Amino acid sequence: MKVKIISLAIILSLTSYTANAKEFVLTDNEKGINKGNWSLSSKDVGIKNEKFTIQNTVLKGGKQDGSEVLTIASDNLTIKLIPTRGLGILSVVGDGIRMGWDSPVNEVVNPKFINLESRGGIGWLDGFNEMMVRCGFEWTGHAVQADGMMYTLHGRAQNTPVSKLIVDVSDKAPYTITIKGLIKENTFKKSNLETSVSLSYIPSTKYFTVHDVVTNNSDYTRDYQIIYHSNFGTPILEEGAKFVAPVKEISPFNDYAKDGLKTWQTYLGPTKDFDEMVFNVYPFADAKGNTQVMVTNKAGDKAAGIAFNTNELPVLSLWKNTDTLKQGYVTGLEPGTSFAYPVTIEREQKRVRHLEPGQSTQFTLTYSLLSSKDAVAKYADEIKTIQGNQETKVVDQPMAKE
Amino acid sequence: MKVKIISLAIILSLTSYTANAKEFVLTDNEKGINKGNWSLSSKDVGIKNEKFTIQNTVLKGGKQDGSEVLTIASDNLTIKLIPTRGLGILSVVGDGIRMGWDSPVNEVVNPKFINLESRGGIGWLDGFNEMMVRCGFEWTGHAVQADGMMYTLHGRAQNTPVSKLIVDVSDKAPYTITIKGLIKENTFKKSNLETSVSLSYIPSTKYFTVHDVVTNNSDYTRDYQIIYHSNFGTPILEEGAKFVAPVKEISPFNDYAKDGLKTWQTYLGPTKDFDEMVFNVYPFADAKGNTQVMVTNKAGDKAAGIAFNTNELPVLSLWKNTDTLKQGYVTGLEPGTSFAYPVTIEREQKRVRHLEPGQSTQFTLTYSLLSSKDAVAKYADEIKTIQGNQETKVVDQPMAKE
Amino acid sequence: MKVKIISLAIILSLTSYTANAKEFVLTDNEKGINKGNWSLSSKDVGIKNEKFTIQNTVLKGGKQDGSEVLTIASDNLTIKLIPTRGLGILSVVGDGIRMGWDSPVNEVVNPKFINLESRGGIGWLDGFNEMMVRCGFEWTGHAVQADGMMYTLHGRAQNTPVSKLIVDVSDKAPYTITIKGLIKENTFKKSNLETSVSLSYIPSTKYFTVHDVVTNNSDYTRDYQIIYHSNFGTPILEEGAKFVAPVKEISPFNDYAKDGLKTWQTYLGPTKDFDEMVFNVYPFADAKGNTQVMVTNKAGDKAAGIAFNTNELPVLSLWKNTDTLKQGYVTGLEPGTSFAYPVTIEREQKRVRHLEPGQSTQFTLTYSLLSSKDAVAKYADEIKTIQGNQETKVVDQPMAKE
Repeated sequence: MKVKIISLAIILSLTSYTANAKEFVLTDNEKGINKGNWSLSSKDVGIKNEKFTIQNTVLKGGKQDGSEVLTIASDNLTIKLIPTRGLGILSVVGDGIRMGWDSPVNEVVNPKFINLESRGGIGWLDGFNEMMVRCGFEWTGHAVQADGMMYTLHGRAQNTPVSKLIVDVSDKAPYTITIKGLIKENTFKKSNLETSVSLSYIPSTKYFTVHDVVTNNSDYTRDYQIIYHSNFGTPILEEGAKFVAPVKEISPFNDYAKDGLKTWQTYLGPTKDFDEMVFNVYPFADAKGNTQVMVTNKAGDKAAGIAFNTNELPVLSLWKNTDTLKQGYVTGLEPGTSFAYPVTIEREQKRVRHLEPGQSTQFTLTYSLLSSKDAVAKYADEIKTIQGNQETKVVDQPMAKE
Repeated sequence: MKVKIISLAIILSLTSYTANAKEFVLTDNEKGINKGNWSLSSKDVGIKNEKFTIQNTVLKGGKQDGSEVLTIASDNLTIKLIPTRGLGILSVVGDGIRMGWDSPVNEVVNPKFINLESRGGIGWLDGFNEMMVRCGFEWTGHAVQADGMMYTLHGRAQNTPVSKLIVDVSDKAPYTITIKGLIKENTFKKSNLETSVSLSYIPSTKYFTVHDVVTNNSDYTRDYQIIYHSNFGTPILEEGAKFVAPVKEISPFNDYAKDGLKTWQTYLGPTKDFDEMVFNVYPFADAKGNTQVMVTNKAGDKAAGIAFNTNELPVLSLWKNTDTLKQGYVTGLEPGTSFAYPVTIEREQKRVRHLEPGQSTQFTLTYSLLSSKDAVAKYADEIKTIQGNQETKVVDQPMAKE
Repeated sequence: MKVKIISLAIILSLTSYTANAKEFVLTDNEKGINKGNWSLSSKDVGIKNEKFTIQNTVLKGGKQDGSEVLTIASDNLTIKLIPTRGLGILSVVGDGIRMGWDSPVNEVVNPKFINLESRGGIGWLDGFNEMMVRCGFEWTGHAVQADGMMYTLHGRAQNTPVSKLIVDVSDKAPYTITIKGLIKENTFKKSNLETSVSLSYIPSTKYFTVHDVVTNNSDYTRDYQIIYHSNFGTPILEEGAKFVAPVKEISPFNDYAKDGLKTWQTYLGPTKDFDEMVFNVYPFADAKGNTQVMVTNKAGDKAAGIAFNTNELPVLSLWKNTDTLKQGYVTGLEPGTSFAYPVTIEREQKRVRHLEPGQSTQFTLTYSLLSSKDAVAKYADEIKTIQGNQETKVVDQPMAKE
């Protein structure tokens, strides 16, 4: 299965780069380093077999004043990351296909201009426009007032500028590029979760791997939750686009989503007044827990796939926001430890996980841009293999009420 | 009537500058431009008949760190705008007369240090010190908790740094200078109002025009409200100063203002414990909807006038904050679509307007600095003409209770 | 008594430096000055008898982007101040002894990334890691919703970047270095408290003086409160460390602290699940109101002392946060006008003070690093002298319930 081979390659390259990599520290707040505008080409590091550039740019003007965008560009793929927004992934483009979407929020908003508590705890929406947003780690899910505080929508990680930003380029083929960041969710008495986030990419390929390690640096057991909110609009999403996944169980997030339960595998075109339907999915996985899911266009020649491990990320939220183009026509395939219910419900339903003092946990997701019928069909076959002849249970009632 | 002539001149110059103007892009967040400190003189653009400078300055230190102030200075008038605060107008000075006031907030506070939700939704007061503040556009008015959120005092526009800042100088007489900005009030699922704001000024004159175009970029009908909070202190405001306007109807904003209803046309000097009295005014206008209002000093040789159109801005809040000098001795003449009640009341009373998908609406206000008995008398005559022999209805009860 | 001599020396030097000092304006927001990275050595000002450097550094990266740290370094002492955080004191180190502590918040967080209202009004904890934090001045104490607003934990001063930052070096022996800042807590209609804060240090000594002047610039009587939250961890704090003070009365802050009442004079080592115990202390003072308190390590050869005047600061909160090292093992000796109860309780119990229009009040605290048995013993003797044969009243019930 391809997914395993990819993982192995990544793991090997991840293992080797410490010894044989060139490391560039762009930001290190302990050392007072913040390079700002910076760039590197394959030439600069003496690589001749591959052509790529890595560029960090400080944006200016309006609410994106001071936001950094880091771009990896190789012949086949351009990946844009946002160090200022928790190293989220703004967009990925390859073979003329874009992984990402068009939000009404068309700036890379600096968290200094965002108040997560605004509009009753949904200020997060003032900045939301990325292809991949980390919703976590201290909490995630819909906003809720509980325990004398507001658990704001989808937590703090995405609106936290990274305290470290490191670019690693392996000096051995396949010259893996790894962008590493550090997200500190530190609050005296309350939280000491620090997350090493990274994205690794082998030049000229059409996939990349997100690898995060969350550590509880405190002396107390602490909760954590994560949803990898991965979002795709046109040209992959369109009328007749398909969600392909090995599904063990699917249920509507709320009453409104009941109406969409029969057609969960397909997408509508941009539809006025659709708003959003969310489905709670438990995916099947292979014996090692590996699984993968995909959204593909109607013709089956453009798709985005995500491979992950259900031991790490047991659930998946399927977010169908097939409203109008201007409203944000987008679907989210969101592997997570939790569904998108408020933390209060996630606690009740035992999906909030814990980290013991000093304990770490990790999450690995490999995103693939599939730009041909063959690539899409192959990815679908792998999904079919995981499903095997196991049935999908369709539950017609939501598991909780907000 | 002068107001029409002025408007025509402005409209002509606005029409012509696109073809015959020099444009300087100081900020464009789509293109990554933010020039920061920048200046231009009439000489630089080859203008010999007029002398002016336009200067953009980045402020430093304290809560004004990073705030930009753009100053237009000609022989007769100095206008200070704040790109970082929605291109509000800080102050205008000409002939030794200041349009503006002295707030206890004596810094140009960068919105990054302001939490609009603080003190129960009145964090806006942490930055309020301008001569003209746009209160809008998604909502305006007093803070209210409703619909599961806090509608913070006077909306978000003033605490939004502009995403675009453009200086236009016509290369034909009268060499109109136009400063244009773009305010984005974009929130996923909630708002996609973008407002092109501008101020146009013909060198050597003592008036300038604010022209704003609000566009609903979303596919859904959306509410909007606007109050042009225009504020004047000394030397125009003083004991015996007068509010001159063609008034169709005036009523007290609340019970406290009832006491001031008999003397709505005059002002007190700085008065301890006065706090503020607000009056809701419906102005008369001419056949085309044009109207104008003024605050003049006692002697009638210093005044600030505002001309606007009641089709665009049907109501006017008269804000008498004749408290002590240090508390902020100031009056607001505030043309708007709404009064200053919370949005909940404005909705009930049908003053909240709507924009259809893609629809725009515009507002034009011409501010005049009147620095002689003649100029003031002329402006007053024009007001008298609009009033004609129509009576002013004085309503003694507030139209709503907060 | 040493404390008086020190005070006198300081006062003399403070008096003289205006005439015979070199002044360096690092920040003045009225003049648009913000020097950012800056340094000065004793050589630069022609001083040969003493060796010191003063350095201002702009931090970069993550949530400390743009935070300034000003470091005074002489042979014996290194003092780190944070202009961006109300000129709080980050840490002081001398003779290998650190005054300060290790918070899970291990960045100098720029207030632009802090929302004081978060987590139910305790967003202050997102930045708390200093040796000395000014908790005030408009209000202080535990967060409470009252008067239609949230009184956030410990007020706004510490999360206010100073509007002025001035370095003064006397050109006469003892070459006193004074760092002066200005904190503006200005909100239209609500607050016009401006506080001149300063730290004075005589090179080669092991003490320094904080001198703050709070002025009510408004025309109305306004409340103020202040707690000098002074925090010490290892190596001074350890199992068997002692709190030494001339105590007139001590009582538990709440029920939980009752259990620690018998052992208020000593500290536990890092203790899991201890959380924090707070005690409300009324100190004895000499005839002039001068008093001093100290925390010393077990062996009595490392200590931090604070001298202050009970006319200015009549109460002291003793904060024992002897939880684990990673949780923040720290004690706070906190002279104040108030205890740490919410402002509502402090009002009821008449500890909230007032400033008449234009009135100022001042606070002087001298912090000493005591790094030998002799120095500690001497400081303890002075405390003993103040206590004399007066008894300590131990009250076993909290004076209020939150």
